[in-house]
Amino acid sequence: MKKNMEYLSSLREVMKQKGIDCAIISGTDPHQSELPPAHWRGREWLTGFESVNGTNGTAVVLPDAAYCWTDSRYFIQAEDQLAGTGFKMMKEDGPEAVSLIDWVAENVASGKTVGIDGMTFSIAWCQRLEQELTDNGIKLDVNFPLFDYIYKERPERPKNKLFVHDEEIVGETVESKVERVMTAVKSELANAVLLSALDDIAWVTNLRTAGDIAFSPIFVAFLYLDEKGSRILFVDKEKLTDEVEAHLAKYNFEVRPYESVTDFVGKLPKESRLLLDPVKTCRGIYDHVGCTPVFGGDALAKLKSVKNDTMISHLETAMEKDGVALTRFFMAVEKEYPTGKLTEMSLARLIREIRLSDPSCVDESFAPILGWNAHGAIVHYEPTEESDVPIVGDGLLLVDSGGQYIYGTTDITRTVALGTPTKEMKHDFSLVLKGNIALSRAIFPKGTRGTQLDVLARQFLWAEGKAYYHGTGHGVGFFINCHEGPQAIRLNDVPAPLEPGMITSNEPGLYLEGKYGIRTENLIVCETWKTTEFGEFYHFETMTLFPIDTDLIDYSIMTDEELDWLNEYHAKVFARLSPLLAPEEVKWLEKKCAPVYNF
Amino acid sequence: MKKNMEYLSSLREVMKQKGIDCAIISGTDPHQSELPPAHWRGREWLTGFESVNGTNGTAVVLPDAAYCWTDSRYFIQAEDQLAGTGFKMMKEDGPEAVSLIDWVAENVASGKTVGIDGMTFSIAWCQRLEQELTDNGIKLDVNFPLFDYIYKERPERPKNKLFVHDEEIVGETVESKVERVMTAVKSELANAVLLSALDDIAWVTNLRTAGDIAFSPIFVAFLYLDEKGSRILFVDKEKLTDEVEAHLAKYNFEVRPYESVTDFVGKLPKESRLLLDPVKTCRGIYDHVGCTPVFGGDALAKLKSVKNDTMISHLETAMEKDGVALTRFFMAVEKEYPTGKLTEMSLARLIREIRLSDPSCVDESFAPILGWNAHGAIVHYEPTEESDVPIVGDGLLLVDSGGQYIYGTTDITRTVALGTPTKEMKHDFSLVLKGNIALSRAIFPKGTRGTQLDVLARQFLWAEGKAYYHGTGHGVGFFINCHEGPQAIRLNDVPAPLEPGMITSNEPGLYLEGKYGIRTENLIVCETWKTTEFGEFYHFETMTLFPIDTDLIDYSIMTDEELDWLNEYHAKVFARLSPLLAPEEVKWLEKKCAPVYNF
Repeated sequence: MKKNMEYLSSLREVMKQKGIDCAIISGTDPHQSELPPAHWRGREWLTGFESVNGTNGTAVVLPDAAYCWTDSRYFIQAEDQLAGTGFKMMKEDGPEAVSLIDWVAENVASGKTVGIDGMTFSIAWCQRLEQELTDNGIKLDVNFPLFDYIYKERPERPKNKLFVHDEEIVGETVESKVERVMTAVKSELANAVLLSALDDIAWVTNLRTAGDIAFSPIFVAFLYLDEKGSRILFVDKEKLTDEVEAHLAKYNFEVRPYESVTDFVGKLPKESRLLLDPVKTCRGIYDHVGCTPVFGGDALAKLKSVKNDTMISHLETAMEKDGVALTRFFMAVEKEYPTGKLTEMSLARLIREIRLSDPSCVDESFAPILGWNAHGAIVHYEPTEESDVPIVGDGLLLVDSGGQYIYGTTDITRTVALGTPTKEMKHDFSLVLKGNIALSRAIFPKGTRGTQLDVLARQFLWAEGKAYYHGTGHGVGFFINCHEGPQAIRLNDVPAPLEPGMITSNEPGLYLEGKYGIRTENLIVCETWKTTEFGEFYHFETMTLFPIDTDLIDYSIMTDEELDWLNEYHAKVFARLSPLLAPEEVKWLEKKCAPVYNF
Repeated sequence: MKKNMEYLSSLREVMKQKGIDCAIISGTDPHQSELPPAHWRGREWLTGFESVNGTNGTAVVLPDAAYCWTDSRYFIQAEDQLAGTGFKMMKEDGPEAVSLIDWVAENVASGKTVGIDGMTFSIAWCQRLEQELTDNGIKLDVNFPLFDYIYKERPERPKNKLFVHDEEIVGETVESKVERVMTAVKSELANAVLLSALDDIAWVTNLRTAGDIAFSPIFVAFLYLDEKGSRILFVDKEKLTDEVEAHLAKYNFEVRPYESVTDFVGKLPKESRLLLDPVKTCRGIYDHVGCTPVFGGDALAKLKSVKNDTMISHLETAMEKDGVALTRFFMAVEKEYPTGKLTEMSLARLIREIRLSDPSCVDESFAPILGWNAHGAIVHYEPTEESDVPIVGDGLLLVDSGGQYIYGTTDITRTVALGTPTKEMKHDFSLVLKGNIALSRAIFPKGTRGTQLDVLARQFLWAEGKAYYHGTGHGVGFFINCHEGPQAIRLNDVPAPLEPGMITSNEPGLYLEGKYGIRTENLIVCETWKTTEFGEFYHFETMTLFPIDTDLIDYSIMTDEELDWLNEYHAKVFARLSPLLAPEEVKWLEKKCAPVYNF
């Protein structure tokens, strides 16, 4: 019997005392973080299911049964880890999906009470829950902070020190950002705003940390701004250094204790109109608000996603550093591959070590997805001790990785052949490459959404009855979250148009179950192209700097225009990286960047 | 002073008597028809503004001012026709757009009453209006049938005779359609439905007429169906023939007077759950409903848009007839052009005459858009006595036209050179053609929406900073409305995916103001292609049969694949049309369909 059975008993004890008939337990924090700090990983502790992604693991506990919902990426792992814990796995997507909210509404009797910790669920989610429960005569108690009662060994909130993200790198003062935020707030007919999302707060304050959140230099805090000039950062004092305090003072920020935010919003003057993003703000905060809440936030999301010229030029530096790291990594792979001693895990360690050897690289931007042959076909594969395989024989190695440089965030995927690739591999690689190039070369009028361009990356695969079903491109932050909105290039419609300064990934792929996976990913920035009598037109500039494996190309299906693009791209990669490399590295890169032709 | 000033005075008199401070006057009918019958063209009579499109002309009358809203296609015409009527034009789109609802909410004082005829506005529109008025303390009276009081010479409702659309052409009995409709109704958790949209009613009943609505063989009626087997057609008895009565009796339809529908819905049993499409059903009906209304209709829209194999094979016949008509038309154009006597109007008459000479062609499917050079650049140009120009000199003739054949509805645009086209014309024509071909050749997985494919038709124009801003493709009915939903291929997102059996237009274009317009339009049908390990894939088959002007092609920008497509298409056109043509017509067509190559 696992420890989790004990935890479950003590939870049921507390539920009985507090009159809760059903507890719903969030996997995330008051900021709706995808990767919450350990302090808010109580759901993981309780159930034993270690999902990295906090928003994809929600538990439900009844007096005589307990469940944990997760998505298809985690089915195998969850089934395994939940065995013997008292929790049964439930599927939140796929053909056997069960909606958690619907399930609770149907399985809890009318008149009973459902309890949640309102601090860990969003306003929007609670609204849906409450609607369903009310329709079924079930009561909702949002003040059930269960881990306060049962999680004795609960880790503290992270106390990592903050540092200032240099304004010369960011290209904009905090003053200017606050002004732009307040203009956006007023455009949504509010006069104050409470920011909960940690990337928003890091962006406004030009502050960062290391360690609060895995793979992102953001920190735990709330931020309040209003039109009268109040700027209040709710943060644990231990996180501040003299430098950070001076920075905050310079921009007239007041610092208050992290926990005091709920009291604070309760005492806001009645006439205040407080902007809250219902998806990013927790219900616990909302329930305390003493003034008029205004739901919105679209105008704010755009501010962060559009990067200024200074950021773009520093991101070029980050790309150079990342290209150098990848050159060293792939040179080592090629050199060591014949020994037969490489494994996915050894390479994951190596790429981290090489990237972090640059002092400007604070962390990886996510856990590397590093898959050999069949593992490459598992879209979100991360090698673990159990899954690790040696890299031997012929095949394809897919490496999706990135770094958090103070000069910007990178995210790149390259698929390379080791040994002799098959004809089929080369053909599929080339279909993916053709899609990547078509999207890179797109020109489109102002107002175009990513969804409209998505087919450019998929068309060559579709023409042969092949397809990938993940998005083609996600927004990328600047030394902040590697995934950010509002723009995206994907199958389903995303309303935010692409705008100059937005960074998006371009990552078509193809996955043959049990055989191999292919993905080619660059980051592209949207730029103004020109204005004609038909309006303003934009195009993309590819920012990522690392060669694409030309040994994997089926030249018979490439057009001259596509090879021209590739040759120009490789010339740029070589010109930008070679000055930063040692002579033998330059030689290696020169070969990889050599022009290719259709004969 | 125009007569309209008198009408306006009598309206204001009635408003005073009835306590109405502001009247909003619809341009359409209780069925939300785009082209309402004369009986419901009271707004046109009142304002003098003759907009063919009833949904694009809404008037607002206040005691001391009067306005008529319209869209950019009609600005010039409306400005002209409204002069001296007492009405001022208001713009509903473009940079100077004013929302009618917002305007009324802002310009009518709190406490005052706005009056509308609820029978002529949709439920959805009234909901938006009512919300805004309520927020501003303004009352809404939806029982103000103003034309009953002031429109003495009002034409009767159309009394055209119905006829049965042969089940052998339609490939489905009324019984089967009713069953499928009821399955869709139940899927929306309702047990009865009231259909208001005239194309829906014509589709279910396999009945048609000529003359009720311009350019569409649909007829004025309401249709009620429920799960207990009630099938009630609310229609003017004078419209029925013996054959139609027998047809209705065969399928157990009861006929009731058209006006009795409101009383009828008022007496439905309380436990009935009546499905109403809030966009297609008028507020006047809704206000009478005595049972539980259920808003929906998406499942129904799909039934009509997916054509069965019998319909598709008959549409092939309609396409042959249309191709023959266009062959005769364009041969005549070429022959008469040197005389200098052709005008846009003479050609509009000619194309109608030729099409309607086939007894299976009941009407044109819309008023031909027939523009010479600069007129071709006006997207919705229709030649009139005032605008007509002789077709002389060198240039491009754009002809967008179609027929309502009992075998299906056609819609085709061809742009041809007369005299010597410029290099620029050929280049632009070829960019448009490349887009048309790219969309024609698309292969895509099940679930794909038109919006996702739209860029395929636009990409070559965009790459040169050129663009058109209308949709690339609209759904097309089967001997019914030429425009139907739910699918569309356009810039903004349309949620309905493309499904096998859906007919859509493929009509990229380019419009150079003051110079010329280009559009190449075919109808394409979505078909199953094949199923692979990645899912089910669809493709399009081009159904329209008429050559594309190869003298207008800039061969330097065409790929071999594109010319292969064109040559195959022309071979099909020739094979299908030549058996139906006279020898000299065959000779003409053979030249037009001759294969072309890149040298």
